[in-house]
Amino acid sequence: MIIIDAGLSFPNEEMFGVDIVIPDFTYIIENQHKLRGIFITHAHEDHVGGLPYLLAHVKCPVYSTEFTLAMIRSKLEEKMDLDPRRLKPIKPGDVVECGSLSVEPIRITHSIPDTMCMAVKTDHGYVLFTADFKFDFSPVDRKLTDIGRLTQIGQEGVVCLVSDTTNVERPGWGPSESKVTDSFRKVFKEAPGRILITTFASNIHRMQQAYTVAAETGRRVAVAGRRMEQTVEICTRMGYLDLEPNVRVKLEDIGKYSPEELVILTTGSQGEPMSALVQMSREEYSRMRVQPGDTVIYSARPIPGNEAAIWRTINRLFSMGANVIYENPGAPVHVSGHGYQEEIKMMINLTKPYYLAAVHGEPRHHHIYQTMAEGMGYPEHRIFQMRDGKPLEISEKEAVFGEEVEFGRVLVDNGGNPGVSDEVLRDRSNLANDGMIVITLAIDVDKGEIVGDIELQARGYSGPEDALRTTAEVIYDAIRGMRKSELHDSDTVRHTVADTARKFLGKRYRLRPMVIPAVIEV
Amino acid sequence: MIIIDAGLSFPNEEMFGVDIVIPDFTYIIENQHKLRGIFITHAHEDHVGGLPYLLAHVKCPVYSTEFTLAMIRSKLEEKMDLDPRRLKPIKPGDVVECGSLSVEPIRITHSIPDTMCMAVKTDHGYVLFTADFKFDFSPVDRKLTDIGRLTQIGQEGVVCLVSDTTNVERPGWGPSESKVTDSFRKVFKEAPGRILITTFASNIHRMQQAYTVAAETGRRVAVAGRRMEQTVEICTRMGYLDLEPNVRVKLEDIGKYSPEELVILTTGSQGEPMSALVQMSREEYSRMRVQPGDTVIYSARPIPGNEAAIWRTINRLFSMGANVIYENPGAPVHVSGHGYQEEIKMMINLTKPYYLAAVHGEPRHHHIYQTMAEGMGYPEHRIFQMRDGKPLEISEKEAVFGEEVEFGRVLVDNGGNPGVSDEVLRDRSNLANDGMIVITLAIDVDKGEIVGDIELQARGYSGPEDALRTTAEVIYDAIRGMRKSELHDSDTVRHTVADTARKFLGKRYRLRPMVIPAVIEV
Repeated sequence: MIIIDAGLSFPNEEMFGVDIVIPDFTYIIENQHKLRGIFITHAHEDHVGGLPYLLAHVKCPVYSTEFTLAMIRSKLEEKMDLDPRRLKPIKPGDVVECGSLSVEPIRITHSIPDTMCMAVKTDHGYVLFTADFKFDFSPVDRKLTDIGRLTQIGQEGVVCLVSDTTNVERPGWGPSESKVTDSFRKVFKEAPGRILITTFASNIHRMQQAYTVAAETGRRVAVAGRRMEQTVEICTRMGYLDLEPNVRVKLEDIGKYSPEELVILTTGSQGEPMSALVQMSREEYSRMRVQPGDTVIYSARPIPGNEAAIWRTINRLFSMGANVIYENPGAPVHVSGHGYQEEIKMMINLTKPYYLAAVHGEPRHHHIYQTMAEGMGYPEHRIFQMRDGKPLEISEKEAVFGEEVEFGRVLVDNGGNPGVSDEVLRDRSNLANDGMIVITLAIDVDKGEIVGDIELQARGYSGPEDALRTTAEVIYDAIRGMRKSELHDSDTVRHTVADTARKFLGKRYRLRPMVIPAVIEV
Repeated sequence: MIIIDAGLSFPNEEMFGVDIVIPDFTYIIENQHKLRGIFITHAHEDHVGGLPYLLAHVKCPVYSTEFTLAMIRSKLEEKMDLDPRRLKPIKPGDVVECGSLSVEPIRITHSIPDTMCMAVKTDHGYVLFTADFKFDFSPVDRKLTDIGRLTQIGQEGVVCLVSDTTNVERPGWGPSESKVTDSFRKVFKEAPGRILITTFASNIHRMQQAYTVAAETGRRVAVAGRRMEQTVEICTRMGYLDLEPNVRVKLEDIGKYSPEELVILTTGSQGEPMSALVQMSREEYSRMRVQPGDTVIYSARPIPGNEAAIWRTINRLFSMGANVIYENPGAPVHVSGHGYQEEIKMMINLTKPYYLAAVHGEPRHHHIYQTMAEGMGYPEHRIFQMRDGKPLEISEKEAVFGEEVEFGRVLVDNGGNPGVSDEVLRDRSNLANDGMIVITLAIDVDKGEIVGDIELQARGYSGPEDALRTTAEVIYDAIRGMRKSELHDSDTVRHTVADTARKFLGKRYRLRPMVIPAVIEV
């Protein structure tokens, strides 16, 4: 058994208080005696972010390029102690033997350096994992896809291609990263003042483009945002950012330059509340301020769910007198790292796989991939839409979905604790939408009577003020209406109190707060 | 004083438990002795949804077209008793005198029937409110913009154009509604089974297109979704839907037809959890089910913030075997009801206003509108980016922003109660993200000691199970450490208990639940 990539995903808007979502690793942990290695195709969060949680349980080595391992180390150091000897650097052309399998990384273009397809040699031929990919013929780092090796393993025999399908909805070929360089050049020359560029902290190519065009146009580049500063640090150290002398300046020193001499790279492209750009847009960032005449370039694609927060940020930036460039037909300030439909077809054409398996995408992408592949002449039984927990079993004669294995998602809370349950989410949803009321009273179970007052405390409750007082009265009435024998039982009292309050608030005020009886026996 | 439109907006993702957002009407209520009338340009929620709340406070008449008033009546009936004599029908060419002002509705094209610009005649010339508009030369209802009258008042003198700017980011001209008819025709002919179309319940033109093309292609149309059924009912009654005999069938009767004879119009285009289509995608809609071979057309634009819910719905529909058409370059299944940049310029060209005021859009649209207008030769002092509460005062000599009046947003909760406060939202956010813990104990203030046990109840709390027990122990310790005199004061006990629990949970588990001490004196 080998693992290719161990990523995370982000919570949807119904997952209150959840920071990240990781896979349920139960199946892997139970079968770890078979596990020979973890191979990482590239350093994006959705491919490496689950590693700290997986490595806490399993002991096998992690293979990837020097660069990807450096990015992983910088992430892992925050979360766990890790024996650095577990991280094994590999490079294109290497072959790692793992029991009956062997794995060979093959260079491919994507939006982060040193992305690798993983060609897994099996008894039935290669299973080729494309990783996230596009065919960019003018990539920022000039490192081209190893098309020769891809066609070669195609000739040797690919039994199954496990393909990225993210952009299968988009017809044609995606634009090259070099398009963005052209757009940057135009903006850098024309912008009257400072230029702020926001992108993902991992988008090293985009940062390189900013540094390159800044040097061309006589600008200096500073970085605002912790994670981005870390990335720039690692990449500069490892030679993955090619900087002209003096182009890099500290954010603290930007006051020494005039606005038209400056570019500031910043985090916040997804409208994250604590990011540098969003804080700037609220005038809450202590290290710099947005000023009239600034040009802000949004060089990223919104992750679905973040759109509203992004638009709010852009509106605030405009209101502060900045000009914001976010969509620029004809001169794009962002291009996707994932190939469009013709590129996805080209991968099939190069590698001539017998079976196709659609991964990395959502059900709609897999469906469209299937339709596309059928259009290329693939019969239905040779195309598989992969689903979590459904193993694809390839034998000499056929490929079929095997018996489902244990799988699922594990929600990690804001404190880093995995395992937020459905019940907790339901309660949070109720609390978020309707608030809550705590009803405190003490009963003397021996005498069967209330001791002291009934007290109501509300939080996140939007009803009229006097509703609490009237609710308390209704509760008194309900308790007065109870038989003496019932008052000896605190559970009955608890139930009556909660039930009375819920019904009254619902009927009178159409409110459904969570009602928590705090009944104490004295 | 007159009012043009009284809309609502929708909560953003930070407004937990908020159903709708309406304007703060304080200024209007305080000045209602001046109020001569409310004019409604068209029946979309963002132009009429605030009416029930406004009409509860002010007594003036409401003027609009017969159709718009019928839509308003259907909404108001749910929320309030309204004297029908307050609703005054007007039609293009009418002029309503309101003190020193007079108001004339002028027909314009948009995505709902009988949309009207409002030309307000003042001593200084016309102030023209465009309403939401596009220039559609082949509208579904064949009712064209009254370009003649617009140019005429342009000649008579428009002192200020108050313009929709929603699509000012989009260059060129927007496509006509007739493009959608063409796309529907193609899909209706080719789809192998049933066709489901989801759009806004108020998008009557879109529904008309479905009925028309269904009749052409031998299909029947049923409606799933309460609000949409109401709209179809009103429109059929008033002659705003032109239906071939027998094309309309009941949802209960769809079993009588074969799949390729059916079209189903349905709500849910924004991924609303309780809508018909979303319930179908969860197999929770009792009146019909999605089946393999169905084609679902998403004929609406996502409102920012709804994207994630919409994609989840689309993915579920694909997984159920349906084909979903949502973006269709070349054959659009939706077009915007708002004109693109050249249309917005054409409005300026027709009406030749002296001043321009950008409304209906966000700050970014107003900024781009200003840049666009400057490009047409308007000097900066003749362009105004309107903001809530900032009155534009036009005198004989100049137009300037006047002193800010009281304004704001009022949040209406799920029960229909207006006035959800910032404090309530903060508490809800805390509860949603971190849950809460109620700590119940009774103290005998005379003796200065705890009576009975300390009880902890948690809701929406994601920490480990034993954390509650250890927290209780830490609280016991803290109380034991209090001086006897402090135990006579329940406020001090309350403070100590909450503070101890908060610090312990934060430090030990990195958890920050809301802590509510329920301390009762006995």
